[in-house]
Amino acid sequence: MFTTILEHKPLIHHLTNTVTINDCANVTLAVGASPVMAEDIREVEEMVRLAQALVLNIGTIDADMQAAQRLAAGEAGRLNVPIVLDPVGAGATTLRTAFSKELIDLGCTVIKGNTSEIKTLLGEDGRTKGVDAAGDAMMDRESIRAFARKHKSVLVVTGPNDYITDGTREMELHVGTPRLGDITGTGCMTASLIASFLGAGYTAFEAAVHGTFVMGKAGEQAVSAQGLGDFKRELFNAISLMTEQELVEVTERVN
Amino acid sequence: MFTTILEHKPLIHHLTNTVTINDCANVTLAVGASPVMAEDIREVEEMVRLAQALVLNIGTIDADMQAAQRLAAGEAGRLNVPIVLDPVGAGATTLRTAFSKELIDLGCTVIKGNTSEIKTLLGEDGRTKGVDAAGDAMMDRESIRAFARKHKSVLVVTGPNDYITDGTREMELHVGTPRLGDITGTGCMTASLIASFLGAGYTAFEAAVHGTFVMGKAGEQAVSAQGLGDFKRELFNAISLMTEQELVEVTERVN
Amino acid sequence: MFTTILEHKPLIHHLTNTVTINDCANVTLAVGASPVMAEDIREVEEMVRLAQALVLNIGTIDADMQAAQRLAAGEAGRLNVPIVLDPVGAGATTLRTAFSKELIDLGCTVIKGNTSEIKTLLGEDGRTKGVDAAGDAMMDRESIRAFARKHKSVLVVTGPNDYITDGTREMELHVGTPRLGDITGTGCMTASLIASFLGAGYTAFEAAVHGTFVMGKAGEQAVSAQGLGDFKRELFNAISLMTEQELVEVTERVN
Repeated sequence: MFTTILEHKPLIHHLTNTVTINDCANVTLAVGASPVMAEDIREVEEMVRLAQALVLNIGTIDADMQAAQRLAAGEAGRLNVPIVLDPVGAGATTLRTAFSKELIDLGCTVIKGNTSEIKTLLGEDGRTKGVDAAGDAMMDRESIRAFARKHKSVLVVTGPNDYITDGTREMELHVGTPRLGDITGTGCMTASLIASFLGAGYTAFEAAVHGTFVMGKAGEQAVSAQGLGDFKRELFNAISLMTEQELVEVTERVN
Repeated sequence: MFTTILEHKPLIHHLTNTVTINDCANVTLAVGASPVMAEDIREVEEMVRLAQALVLNIGTIDADMQAAQRLAAGEAGRLNVPIVLDPVGAGATTLRTAFSKELIDLGCTVIKGNTSEIKTLLGEDGRTKGVDAAGDAMMDRESIRAFARKHKSVLVVTGPNDYITDGTREMELHVGTPRLGDITGTGCMTASLIASFLGAGYTAFEAAVHGTFVMGKAGEQAVSAQGLGDFKRELFNAISLMTEQELVEVTERVN
Repeated sequence: MFTTILEHKPLIHHLTNTVTINDCANVTLAVGASPVMAEDIREVEEMVRLAQALVLNIGTIDADMQAAQRLAAGEAGRLNVPIVLDPVGAGATTLRTAFSKELIDLGCTVIKGNTSEIKTLLGEDGRTKGVDAAGDAMMDRESIRAFARKHKSVLVVTGPNDYITDGTREMELHVGTPRLGDITGTGCMTASLIASFLGAGYTAFEAAVHGTFVMGKAGEQAVSAQGLGDFKRELFNAISLMTEQELVEVTERVN
């Protein structure tokens, strides 16, 4: 657990999918924050008013959850409760792409997705810059920065190296292991970690960097586990045993 | 597993939240009972008729789940199937407070909550006794006993020491560890444990005491685990390996 | 992981229950396939078009999930995406029995259930053969084969020995341990395993045999674990570490 998070014990309100909801609750506890999941439209705004950060994850989205996320995002916007969006599966279906864009337009503090999801979200903005832009990695990064500036969001693009930008500052983190993709939920949990740092008062950019770093570093510490049962166990061990001091290592993992 | 539960193999019908539903199923199996989760209004009463106990948990309540819980509680009442209520988050939102009270009025065999949740539920009853009552711990206990008598329920108030009363008998259990709060679901699982004892024929008071004791004792046995991955693993190990003989230790843990 | 599955990395679309959804996602990843859970009626057909196999599990069925499963099954039928049906609780409630039969009539590639569930589904067909048929185990098997032929499905009847038939070929697998029943989800996960082999191009009969074998064999490998926390961990270890070569052992486990 991290003392800064533990001191604030921020309440992290999750509107999330049913696949990894238990892991998200546990990872939030593991770093010293307090998770709550409330998804009925009649109570979702009331819960946002108690929360220090809000996670919106569209992994098993349906009409009820959409209605709840719209209300929660609106209330969070009014109260300056920071929002972390995990646009799970954007690009895979029309519903997910459209709803991710709708939530982004409502205002998200941090948007965390894998390369494919973020590419989908950049889609239109990118196209306006001409087709040839797509082939160039450096230009691609400029698209991401432009998107971040336009939406006043911090973008986290996870991958072999994680790229984080607020449109002005940027950071490439060299941390993690491909094995994090061998179990479900490590992406969702990263959103919970970012939200936990946000809820404890870190800036959006710092929270994005630290949350992403914690998952990557824990993955490295768990990597020697042979089977997936042990890998998941060691991953939770590593996250819960990580200390404030280990966070300074972030600076050594930057390109 | 406990031989008395294993002999009866009671079916424990859960209407519960999506966060800890898997843990509740596994803990029910771990003590020798059989879990089932059926939440559609068209089948919920049919399933109650097959069950030996019913768990109602409002952790991720929505309108559909409310309708299902109302029907299930009604049928359980008609058939004398014991009900364990876990009023998760009562006090946090209006919906949860109101619906908890509605379920209590329908008749619950055991009501298990943390101090904050139970205080919320006692609210009105307490206020009728005058404001100054609140400051006195002994009076507070009398409020709990009065509430238990009024609603013909056993109350379990979890905390550093767990307090259990049917309004006449009472017990303070000195068991457990604060680390049980470091993972999600230990409260929900306690409700499943209580229901498993109820379904096997224990009285409401006995079932409440034994279910609460099993979780606390297992927490103590798991406490040396360093990380949270190992703590959860050891907790499930301890519950599944606990024997009938260890239950007599309850009497040594009473104030 | 299995190299044949890993090479194809099939997308396995799950419409499943909330109790074991996380375990199903993880077991799919553990053998080298890719799980996705999308259950909104507006996207379910679009997701089927991306998938190589579809799992339908009625464990926590409700009206929304029924609508989604109907649409998904229809689209899978049109596109020849293989379907694995897990009729959880068929026989326990009218809703589950009726809906299982409805899905079977829509066409399922593999139907996997325990003895009680399959008996329920055979019910009507069986009755037409006269009551005395029920008492004879050999006749019972003929009923299963007839059902498989009639519905052009492979049937997997799990139990102390697993029986698999497409109506012509049949196999009795001697693998597994009763301890697989001590944790929730091993049946659901078997459906995900079968779907992963199907999605990688195995025939329905082969996929049914291999998926069932993998769960049984992993159970045997985990059986020395004492507590249930360790049993589940070791089960996931065993599944994720199993190799293509170990699959040949199937032939030695046949009656």
